[in-house]
Amino acid sequence: MMSEFFGDISPIKFEGPASSNPLAYRYYDPGRVVMGKTMEQHLRFAVCYWHTFCWDGVDPFGMNTMDRPWIGQSDAMAGARLKAEVAFEMFSLLGVPYFSFHDRDIAPEGATLAESNRNVQVITDLFAEKMQETGVNLLWGTANLFSHRRFMAGASTNPDPDVFAYSAAQVKNALDVTHKLNGQNYVLWGGREGYETLLNTNMQRELDQMGRFLNLVVDYKHKIGFDGTILIEPKPQEPTKHQYDFDVATVYGFLKRYGLEDEVRVNIEVGHAVLSGHSFEHEIATANALGIFGSIDANRNDYQSGWDTDQFPNNVPEMSLALYYILQAGGFTTGGLNFDSKLRRQSTDPADLLYGHIGGMDTCARALLAAAAMHESGDLNALVSERYAGWDSEVAQAMLSRESTLESIAERVERENIDPQPKSGRQEYCENLVNRFL
Amino acid sequence: MMSEFFGDISPIKFEGPASSNPLAYRYYDPGRVVMGKTMEQHLRFAVCYWHTFCWDGVDPFGMNTMDRPWIGQSDAMAGARLKAEVAFEMFSLLGVPYFSFHDRDIAPEGATLAESNRNVQVITDLFAEKMQETGVNLLWGTANLFSHRRFMAGASTNPDPDVFAYSAAQVKNALDVTHKLNGQNYVLWGGREGYETLLNTNMQRELDQMGRFLNLVVDYKHKIGFDGTILIEPKPQEPTKHQYDFDVATVYGFLKRYGLEDEVRVNIEVGHAVLSGHSFEHEIATANALGIFGSIDANRNDYQSGWDTDQFPNNVPEMSLALYYILQAGGFTTGGLNFDSKLRRQSTDPADLLYGHIGGMDTCARALLAAAAMHESGDLNALVSERYAGWDSEVAQAMLSRESTLESIAERVERENIDPQPKSGRQEYCENLVNRFL
Amino acid sequence: MMSEFFGDISPIKFEGPASSNPLAYRYYDPGRVVMGKTMEQHLRFAVCYWHTFCWDGVDPFGMNTMDRPWIGQSDAMAGARLKAEVAFEMFSLLGVPYFSFHDRDIAPEGATLAESNRNVQVITDLFAEKMQETGVNLLWGTANLFSHRRFMAGASTNPDPDVFAYSAAQVKNALDVTHKLNGQNYVLWGGREGYETLLNTNMQRELDQMGRFLNLVVDYKHKIGFDGTILIEPKPQEPTKHQYDFDVATVYGFLKRYGLEDEVRVNIEVGHAVLSGHSFEHEIATANALGIFGSIDANRNDYQSGWDTDQFPNNVPEMSLALYYILQAGGFTTGGLNFDSKLRRQSTDPADLLYGHIGGMDTCARALLAAAAMHESGDLNALVSERYAGWDSEVAQAMLSRESTLESIAERVERENIDPQPKSGRQEYCENLVNRFL
Amino acid sequence: MMSEFFGDISPIKFEGPASSNPLAYRYYDPGRVVMGKTMEQHLRFAVCYWHTFCWDGVDPFGMNTMDRPWIGQSDAMAGARLKAEVAFEMFSLLGVPYFSFHDRDIAPEGATLAESNRNVQVITDLFAEKMQETGVNLLWGTANLFSHRRFMAGASTNPDPDVFAYSAAQVKNALDVTHKLNGQNYVLWGGREGYETLLNTNMQRELDQMGRFLNLVVDYKHKIGFDGTILIEPKPQEPTKHQYDFDVATVYGFLKRYGLEDEVRVNIEVGHAVLSGHSFEHEIATANALGIFGSIDANRNDYQSGWDTDQFPNNVPEMSLALYYILQAGGFTTGGLNFDSKLRRQSTDPADLLYGHIGGMDTCARALLAAAAMHESGDLNALVSERYAGWDSEVAQAMLSRESTLESIAERVERENIDPQPKSGRQEYCENLVNRFL
Repeated sequence: MMSEFFGDISPIKFEGPASSNPLAYRYYDPGRVVMGKTMEQHLRFAVCYWHTFCWDGVDPFGMNTMDRPWIGQSDAMAGARLKAEVAFEMFSLLGVPYFSFHDRDIAPEGATLAESNRNVQVITDLFAEKMQETGVNLLWGTANLFSHRRFMAGASTNPDPDVFAYSAAQVKNALDVTHKLNGQNYVLWGGREGYETLLNTNMQRELDQMGRFLNLVVDYKHKIGFDGTILIEPKPQEPTKHQYDFDVATVYGFLKRYGLEDEVRVNIEVGHAVLSGHSFEHEIATANALGIFGSIDANRNDYQSGWDTDQFPNNVPEMSLALYYILQAGGFTTGGLNFDSKLRRQSTDPADLLYGHIGGMDTCARALLAAAAMHESGDLNALVSERYAGWDSEVAQAMLSRESTLESIAERVERENIDPQPKSGRQEYCENLVNRFL
Repeated sequence: MMSEFFGDISPIKFEGPASSNPLAYRYYDPGRVVMGKTMEQHLRFAVCYWHTFCWDGVDPFGMNTMDRPWIGQSDAMAGARLKAEVAFEMFSLLGVPYFSFHDRDIAPEGATLAESNRNVQVITDLFAEKMQETGVNLLWGTANLFSHRRFMAGASTNPDPDVFAYSAAQVKNALDVTHKLNGQNYVLWGGREGYETLLNTNMQRELDQMGRFLNLVVDYKHKIGFDGTILIEPKPQEPTKHQYDFDVATVYGFLKRYGLEDEVRVNIEVGHAVLSGHSFEHEIATANALGIFGSIDANRNDYQSGWDTDQFPNNVPEMSLALYYILQAGGFTTGGLNFDSKLRRQSTDPADLLYGHIGGMDTCARALLAAAAMHESGDLNALVSERYAGWDSEVAQAMLSRESTLESIAERVERENIDPQPKSGRQEYCENLVNRFL
Repeated sequence: MMSEFFGDISPIKFEGPASSNPLAYRYYDPGRVVMGKTMEQHLRFAVCYWHTFCWDGVDPFGMNTMDRPWIGQSDAMAGARLKAEVAFEMFSLLGVPYFSFHDRDIAPEGATLAESNRNVQVITDLFAEKMQETGVNLLWGTANLFSHRRFMAGASTNPDPDVFAYSAAQVKNALDVTHKLNGQNYVLWGGREGYETLLNTNMQRELDQMGRFLNLVVDYKHKIGFDGTILIEPKPQEPTKHQYDFDVATVYGFLKRYGLEDEVRVNIEVGHAVLSGHSFEHEIATANALGIFGSIDANRNDYQSGWDTDQFPNNVPEMSLALYYILQAGGFTTGGLNFDSKLRRQSTDPADLLYGHIGGMDTCARALLAAAAMHESGDLNALVSERYAGWDSEVAQAMLSRESTLESIAERVERENIDPQPKSGRQEYCENLVNRFL
Repeated sequence: MMSEFFGDISPIKFEGPASSNPLAYRYYDPGRVVMGKTMEQHLRFAVCYWHTFCWDGVDPFGMNTMDRPWIGQSDAMAGARLKAEVAFEMFSLLGVPYFSFHDRDIAPEGATLAESNRNVQVITDLFAEKMQETGVNLLWGTANLFSHRRFMAGASTNPDPDVFAYSAAQVKNALDVTHKLNGQNYVLWGGREGYETLLNTNMQRELDQMGRFLNLVVDYKHKIGFDGTILIEPKPQEPTKHQYDFDVATVYGFLKRYGLEDEVRVNIEVGHAVLSGHSFEHEIATANALGIFGSIDANRNDYQSGWDTDQFPNNVPEMSLALYYILQAGGFTTGGLNFDSKLRRQSTDPADLLYGHIGGMDTCARALLAAAAMHESGDLNALVSERYAGWDSEVAQAMLSRESTLESIAERVERENIDPQPKSGRQEYCENLVNRFL
């Protein structure tokens, strides 16, 4: 059975850079081997359920613009099944290896949590069949703890302990189905974990609640034998005025505080990085330095808009630097490249969903080629190593060890009359070097 | 001997809110008792040396506009002595209890570090006399590890270990003189500890260097018996593209990583908070929640400028909320309220230095009155407590303890069919409540 | 008949600054005379229909949180009538003299434009009665040309001329009913007049369309004898990536280009000013300088959020400076102070609607008192006049007239060896002066 | 005579994309013909004097880092001559056809304006010889009306009319020498034309002064027969809190107000566009739409820094879109591509000056190839034309002409029951199309 939503569009194929076919890949050639792995194995693309199948063009100033036959059906479970149908058709058309979802994306909320959970289970059973048929796998699952009004003041950080309990129960189910579908990761995005105003908020209490909640999740993961990675997705704000998981460095401090730095990693989104005042590659490099890199939400943020625009990636230089730092740290393990990207509101045709993903996948594939070439050339690494070479000396290493003290170092500076001379950092040279690979 | 820099201006006195004398305090009444302490004891005002006595109006697009007779003297030490003269005259005119300085603010760089250190010691000996005479004390000292070209690629995070060593030796001297002058705190601001481009940077290495450096400083502090507080001052960027001490939460993670969260606290600046995408009160509340609040750099940032404008505080509501959170946490201990504030470039008269500080001090004094009234009324605290009251129940507390698991909670949610209902957060009510005290 | 929506709350009364009654005015005393007019005559408060009665707490990440009985009624016109009932009850409770609306706020969209127009006419007939009963008047009306999907690519700037036509017809009706209700102004906000991407946009064409549209509106206004003011509301972006009416200065250039600078004025919103990188008082002062000041949308934007937060005003200093510049230019004529302000999403109680407006009105009333005192003191004006006094000389005026040339001026500079010396701008002095009145 | 500043570096040659020589062009091939003109004719590259030869690494937090032998010479005119020597050597090494300067970049300020003017004349006479020798031409000259303390409160907008006069005399001389050197344009950047605080400012007065000043300049240009273009460079802020020439649209309104829209055009800088909340291509497209496009200052702004970072261009996609819109409007006439770009402070080697320019020139050359291919393909233009095709009908054109009225249009909408249906804007398709050419 085919839904006919995409009409007679054929599966998207690689045709090479010279192709002008808008429904072909120009760079994404899944089987092409780069640095010992195929492109597919490197990039681990996932299509997300929410933007792709649940959003119909509503924005804060306007109604829906897109006609999605599965939205608004009187039989909500029938709508959910049609949605799944179209979703797996699209995964197949694109040839992506993974997808990702929130529990509420895939199945309607019921009258009780028990009923909601059952709805989710029904649809995930359907997913299991379709995954079998198509070979598409689950990159990650997650629970939507932000859309319903009960979460308006937070999930685990809610002033009402019943919301904490409800959230725990909902996450348990979401983690169960993610486990059943052999998900590679489980994600927590604290969309409402933060505050609208400090005036009515007890931050310390809320952080403790959130730390406790995450420990509950980690304990349960081990109990059921889920060996995927637990990921936190940092975001500075929106929908709340301020979110606790502001950025990678903040999440690291939170994990340290609650003893979770070896258990939990981060899922970094381009747009969230931008909103928090960082570059995307900064967030990745920070996660590498702190040992908590996990996965990415690939998209693009409009640099002139102060909110999360979730556009499809099309900026090759931005994505190349990101993938360079990911390759530097050994590439993805359980993580992958999830398109947390949505169409512009005026892109109302079904084919636009394909154009968005094709462009995003080609951008990332091209960026992978650039990043791999940059990495393999070793030029930049050599330059960096050379810049810090002075630290290899014995006397330098001694300063980093417990042997030295401020006094002993000061004494040596005076004795040797140390007077360090600046040396060019060669930034423009480095930037030109990078441009050679883009 | 008087320098005559300020002409015949008399010491600034409290004249009350009705006064229209621009050279009088309208709110700052040092001896007035508020919540059991005098205003002077609460606010612990400090005048900073750098903006006030070292800056002559230069900006990135223009030359100096202010005539400061001590700048550019051919005998640099004579200039430094004149500067000290004027500084203590000004402290006395204003009646401030504290001041603060970088080593390079107070004495010229010598041909060697040893000579630079001696210059600093000469002037701090002069300070000791003047402090004795005037009763003015030292809120904090610090070392300037960012202006000289040797620090262009960082101090402790420099790729050249000799700069690390040089910095260690310079900090030792700065800490020694701070200790000698009975400074209440010692501050580290990592102005160049960050990067201009990730391309030539090894972030992990640099963070480890910085962590080691701070441990050296803490060890030395204990060795010499300095019982002031070691403070880090977060700032997201400027002069570097990205500073490692981005904001309070980032600094917390850094301290945890290097085992220093019980040794080091933060000195929070209004302008730095704004540049990092937070409100000032957010940074204070965060430091309170994480247990690392230390001191503040009071100023104001232009909300439309994307750089550190360091204006004198004049926003009573902004400062009132900050002081409210400081009072909530018990007020300053070793910390204080340092004016990291500078005149606008066109404010070229000596009297402008007084207007700036008078306005800033009155703003803070008025804010203290508002904050204390808000705190004493207890209305906001009661509202917050009531909002979280549900957590006092046994079953709620059990969720926070080790007894509960995700499963046990989920089981209870289903059994009791828990369906939490949202309750108004009453933000506008809270905001109106605050306005009652401003 | 009473709707009972607000329960047994009594009309809000002035009780003075000492009152701690959250349902009383502390500063807004409608009949109090300030600078020769009552507060009510100065401030000309208006409650807006859209945020207050049409929004139920939906945000881009979440469902409705507020229960508004008139939303979602199966008989949409019955819902519209109930909404009108509650609206006028609230106007009376607050004692506001004005309200404002979009056509689609007050009545449901019909199957055709003709039917939609009739729905609007039915409700505005009801308004006429209620206005008669209550004495509440209409500050302005406007047409919603942005919510329906037909406007997704703009109204007058749409690539499809049928949308231009449809918009013209809709505006005609909205202007007709505004005229019938004796509206003081008619507003155009170009929510979708801009672009999502330049790539598919012909900017010149769209500007010409928009210029033509506005001329059509102005011509029609004169034809029907509407003597209210036509107002454009600048906003830089959101919902579009970029709006053509970016800020006051941009609107001025647009009006000049299409010959409308004497016909149209601006309605300036606090939040829109902030989003465009200006202070609110800057936008007002600019409109004054260019002769196009009209009215204001009073609200407040969160300074850390990059989108339009539309919070109730509660920042007395910000509002005081704005009102100071408005008083400087003679105060409102047809304009007024419309609360384009909405509750926070968690403020779910009916009483929160009252708290929001009470706090906003008190903020503005207090700001009016401050602004009037500042204006009446004349201190700031005197300082400004004195600063430019040099321009009163004959030789200075000659430079501004057609007599002088670059050569004649240069010749005089050399002859007189003119060497201007800088003079303090006294910014901190001015800021302290302002704080004396706040 | 050679200065030996650049050691034994040979002139930079084109070696093609495969070259890994950091001192070669990979894309800039001056004689290569693109769309009927050589690359050199299209791009009209200019090296700027100020960043390249006058800046030594000083920043607001630090001293100079670069050793420039011509800075700080006791014989300032000898320093100026050495600087000119090195400058023309560098122009020749790079093979750029143009340069640009401020009067104060090239020669020291004298004791009087007359002496300053003579210094400028001496050096420009030297320039004339070197231009003859090397074939390098002047893209534009300008007067520095912002660095000296006399301009701290503005040049033409100064409250002191003597500063207006002084500025007029200085501009006369700068325009004279620009004319003598056959400059293609004359630029005015109002670095201090704005305000630090509205409180001490009369905006209307200052705008009138600025309008009058610009008219004086235009009159004088005609008088002396200068046929270059007068250009204004928009910038929103920095050094002032707010500059009057905020962005392109604001400048347009200003030109219209003072009757200069046919006389003056804009010089658009990448970084200034970014700071004003626009994309670079937006500013170019706006200038095209309003008929005032002139020239560009090519650079790049760090997207995470809130100040003018003036980095060398290296973002090919950003520059490609800009050049696409420039080609769409027919390419440069008198304008060109001036590198208002400076080294990073840590790039201290003379060779870094070459790396910066080489990278920038290659970025622009590569962008030109992409833009030309995009333009020549016509795909995007076709898509845009098709999108607006409905406007070609007679009835649509009638709405734009004076024949239609709001009533006649409304009558037709009702009669024909017009109900426009949205059509996909195909943004992702367009973006993919663009990526095909990058």
